[in-house]
Amino acid sequence: MAKYAIGLDFGTLSVRALLVNIENGDEIAQSVYEYPHAVMETHIPTGETLPPNWALQDPQDYLNGLLITVRSVMSQSKVLPEEVIGIGVDFTSATILPVTKDKMPLCQTEEFAHEPHAYVKLWKHHGGEEEAIFIDKVARDRGEWWLPLYGGKVSSEWTIPKILETLHKAPAVYEKADYFLEAMDWIVWEMTDTLTASACAMGYKAFYHHEKGFPSKDFFKALDPRMENLVEDKLNMPILPIGGKAGGLCDSMARELGLLPGTPVGTPIIDAHCSVPGGGVGKPGEMMIIMGTSSCHLMLAEKEAAITGIQGIVKDGIMPGYFGIEAGQSCVGDHFAWFVDNCVPETYTAAARAKGISVHQYLSEKLAGYKAGASGLVALDWFNGVRSPLMDFDLNGLIIGMNLLTKPEDIYLALIEATAFGTKAIVENYEAAGVPVNSIVLSGGIPSKNPLIVQIYTDILNRDIKVCASDQACALGAAVLGIAAAPEAITGYKDANEIAGKLAKLQDKVYKPNPDQVAAYDKLYAEYKTLHDYFGKGANDVMKRLNKIREERK
Amino acid sequence: MAKYAIGLDFGTLSVRALLVNIENGDEIAQSVYEYPHAVMETHIPTGETLPPNWALQDPQDYLNGLLITVRSVMSQSKVLPEEVIGIGVDFTSATILPVTKDKMPLCQTEEFAHEPHAYVKLWKHHGGEEEAIFIDKVARDRGEWWLPLYGGKVSSEWTIPKILETLHKAPAVYEKADYFLEAMDWIVWEMTDTLTASACAMGYKAFYHHEKGFPSKDFFKALDPRMENLVEDKLNMPILPIGGKAGGLCDSMARELGLLPGTPVGTPIIDAHCSVPGGGVGKPGEMMIIMGTSSCHLMLAEKEAAITGIQGIVKDGIMPGYFGIEAGQSCVGDHFAWFVDNCVPETYTAAARAKGISVHQYLSEKLAGYKAGASGLVALDWFNGVRSPLMDFDLNGLIIGMNLLTKPEDIYLALIEATAFGTKAIVENYEAAGVPVNSIVLSGGIPSKNPLIVQIYTDILNRDIKVCASDQACALGAAVLGIAAAPEAITGYKDANEIAGKLAKLQDKVYKPNPDQVAAYDKLYAEYKTLHDYFGKGANDVMKRLNKIREERK
Repeated sequence: MAKYAIGLDFGTLSVRALLVNIENGDEIAQSVYEYPHAVMETHIPTGETLPPNWALQDPQDYLNGLLITVRSVMSQSKVLPEEVIGIGVDFTSATILPVTKDKMPLCQTEEFAHEPHAYVKLWKHHGGEEEAIFIDKVARDRGEWWLPLYGGKVSSEWTIPKILETLHKAPAVYEKADYFLEAMDWIVWEMTDTLTASACAMGYKAFYHHEKGFPSKDFFKALDPRMENLVEDKLNMPILPIGGKAGGLCDSMARELGLLPGTPVGTPIIDAHCSVPGGGVGKPGEMMIIMGTSSCHLMLAEKEAAITGIQGIVKDGIMPGYFGIEAGQSCVGDHFAWFVDNCVPETYTAAARAKGISVHQYLSEKLAGYKAGASGLVALDWFNGVRSPLMDFDLNGLIIGMNLLTKPEDIYLALIEATAFGTKAIVENYEAAGVPVNSIVLSGGIPSKNPLIVQIYTDILNRDIKVCASDQACALGAAVLGIAAAPEAITGYKDANEIAGKLAKLQDKVYKPNPDQVAAYDKLYAEYKTLHDYFGKGANDVMKRLNKIREERK
Repeated sequence: MAKYAIGLDFGTLSVRALLVNIENGDEIAQSVYEYPHAVMETHIPTGETLPPNWALQDPQDYLNGLLITVRSVMSQSKVLPEEVIGIGVDFTSATILPVTKDKMPLCQTEEFAHEPHAYVKLWKHHGGEEEAIFIDKVARDRGEWWLPLYGGKVSSEWTIPKILETLHKAPAVYEKADYFLEAMDWIVWEMTDTLTASACAMGYKAFYHHEKGFPSKDFFKALDPRMENLVEDKLNMPILPIGGKAGGLCDSMARELGLLPGTPVGTPIIDAHCSVPGGGVGKPGEMMIIMGTSSCHLMLAEKEAAITGIQGIVKDGIMPGYFGIEAGQSCVGDHFAWFVDNCVPETYTAAARAKGISVHQYLSEKLAGYKAGASGLVALDWFNGVRSPLMDFDLNGLIIGMNLLTKPEDIYLALIEATAFGTKAIVENYEAAGVPVNSIVLSGGIPSKNPLIVQIYTDILNRDIKVCASDQACALGAAVLGIAAAPEAITGYKDANEIAGKLAKLQDKVYKPNPDQVAAYDKLYAEYKTLHDYFGKGANDVMKRLNKIREERK
């Protein structure tokens, strides 16, 4: 009997189910369900309007997507229920919803159907910006032990700012919620009828530490006296490591999905982090870079290290047995999209249209055979602030070296190079902290579609680079964690690390550094670093002053 | 009997004649003649091809244009020959041609008709780049007294590099030439049958000083032994101050033009400099800024001052009785044109087209009501190197402060502001050298067409600014010098300064600084200056290194 696992990848706009053969990773069937409510940024279904910077979702979309996509891959593939030996889940995070002890999202209760704070606050909901700044200040003033582990700065995208925002703006919702859950934990609860939480989301987004637990009651009290008992009252559930089983499918869910009751469901993981098992990265020394609108740089380490300028370090947070470390760049694909939207002349746009290719492709064609350094430009990739290693969101972009012969493709190249220089700074930061980076795998839409960009990264990082073969590395990673949730006696695998190494598929092509380009890029990187330190480390705080003036003059 | 003067403005592509009433400056008639050969950049009329960076002209075009345009304004206006009391000439410079002692351009001789070096080398002919670098080095090594008066750097656009190029590449032309003349001096010789040279072109372009004369024989010998006697042999003619008479129309030319023999012809002047009399600027404290692809900043001073970072200082070089000082910015209109050509997206270009306006106008409309500093950007206006005050052509551009919300019009504004900051640095440089700048007049196409740009300059310079009313400030200035060539008994004017003050026309609108914008711009200028000094004065020579890498990697 063949054996299969299902990976469920809950993204920002849709959920994807991927049915995988557990022996060879063959992708047998897949199905995508786009959320009907997508991201609610202007109003909720009952008509109430939303302020700027909000981003809500409807949890029913997740549940409907789960049923439809799983049924679809099962019916497409003719795989039998008993042949599915595990299910894994990845999900956006921090994507937080208030629920009752009966699993009911508060937005589905009559009482709160008109209350925006009762809905799911998606990872990119920034309504709690003031709360984040306040939490940051309180944590800094109190010298909280966990702050350095989170890069020294609290993001409004994280869990506690979202909860504090609810307490401030909709105290009745706070009061009524029996739990504030990550959507990943809620969906697993729905599937298994067992309430647990993932060490991954708790560790990277909610200030949870595997030994020290959550921040103290005193800290939460300092945020708001009503929040003193937040952990005991509303975050009180077992926290499970990645790579294990969260529970088995409950009877009702098994019936709905057309699977067997008790089918193991793995501990869910953050979607970006799921590229690590999906990309076959299972041990220290291997870096997985997920390149999207922004980039994540994930590493596994044997020991908890004090690394400045990272986003988080979590035991069992990415792969079992290791500390998973996350660094990040704020602005990668966003950077290139900004350029294409704002700075590419009509002649180029029209020529790309005439050739039937994207503007990105057209610019890449213009750069065919380019020589590093020939454009004379260097840029700082700070258009959206800086995550790692500076952790300073009060910085902004720079381009230097233009003359009257500078062409659009020169600037496009400089922006790509800038993101690669930013990655090199992150690699150096890891290595300076004793976490060597021996090999690199890229995943995400950008590297799979754009070999030019991968080659630039290869030449700048001066290391061989491999690229995930599938755009669905996340869903594949989820399937890996689904297999890991089943007993070794059934799967034949010892742990998630072994499964990842076996199932992940990389492109055949290994990108090799070109020594000629490497030498030129070493010179440009030296210039990048000088500018990086001059503008980023206090010698000239012009960027901060310009931001201040910008705010004052708005 | 009414009295009139003719101003002849020999530009890069055409000559314009303007007939002016000498009492009130009324522009009675004008005529433009476009040079049939325009600028010869690829080949000469006999078919010989030209290397890159060449720019030649055919002197016959000047002569034909003179005849056609003067006859045209006379016939249009019905003004009588005896009513024309003077003629003035402005011309591009250094625009150099080799001629025989019979006034014959060598390119019109059978011997040299096929020889490119026998043609007119237009101001923007850069074929002598290597010669300029060599002359610069020799002058620096020898500590030549005149080098600091020329901003410390020799341009290939100037006279001596053009002559040395001819000596190197076409020694027979050098040998055969009885004179190397500015085109302005050749045309005046044709008109008056008297060979003279203008102190203006000799002073600003040929290293001539009113007291010290030309550089020494030793210097010229160091350039090339064959050049030792260049001055005695080929530059030997009376050098006349601006504001006086070069000669009277000779009989044959008077007949051809339909004017009276003996009609006074004024000493010719460089076209840009002619905006000073044309804009009514006639005394110290008044700055004339000519804004075109690049900008000139002209001042009159009582004394010869040692000012660093200027382009030239010449006694009687712009207006009689004063030292005329020229500073310059390399990249102004060129800057904005680069942006519009390379960085404006299709949506904007299409919207401008739909509205039937230029992209410049469309961007300006987008900026209506903008608040200084709100975009958070600062740029360095160095896309074409820096003339005043740094005199360093090995610098390049910078833009800082971008984020993902930065719009094309924000960058356009930053580039405009950068040129205004550059002007402010030049004003401060003048004032630090004891040359106060009390009032400012702008001339040229940009200020007459774009009130937004004028207001930005007004707010950044924090001074009232006036704008020349006519696009023909140069031709009007030439007419002023034509009047000045005639006796006071006929004109009623004491000198050119008085005439300029009476005849020049400025727009009624005086631009006034807006205190709110001024305060914000003071902050931005402080940032500009910090970046200016950091990147321009050796703290971080990244721009020079990037230029070097660019050259190596081409």
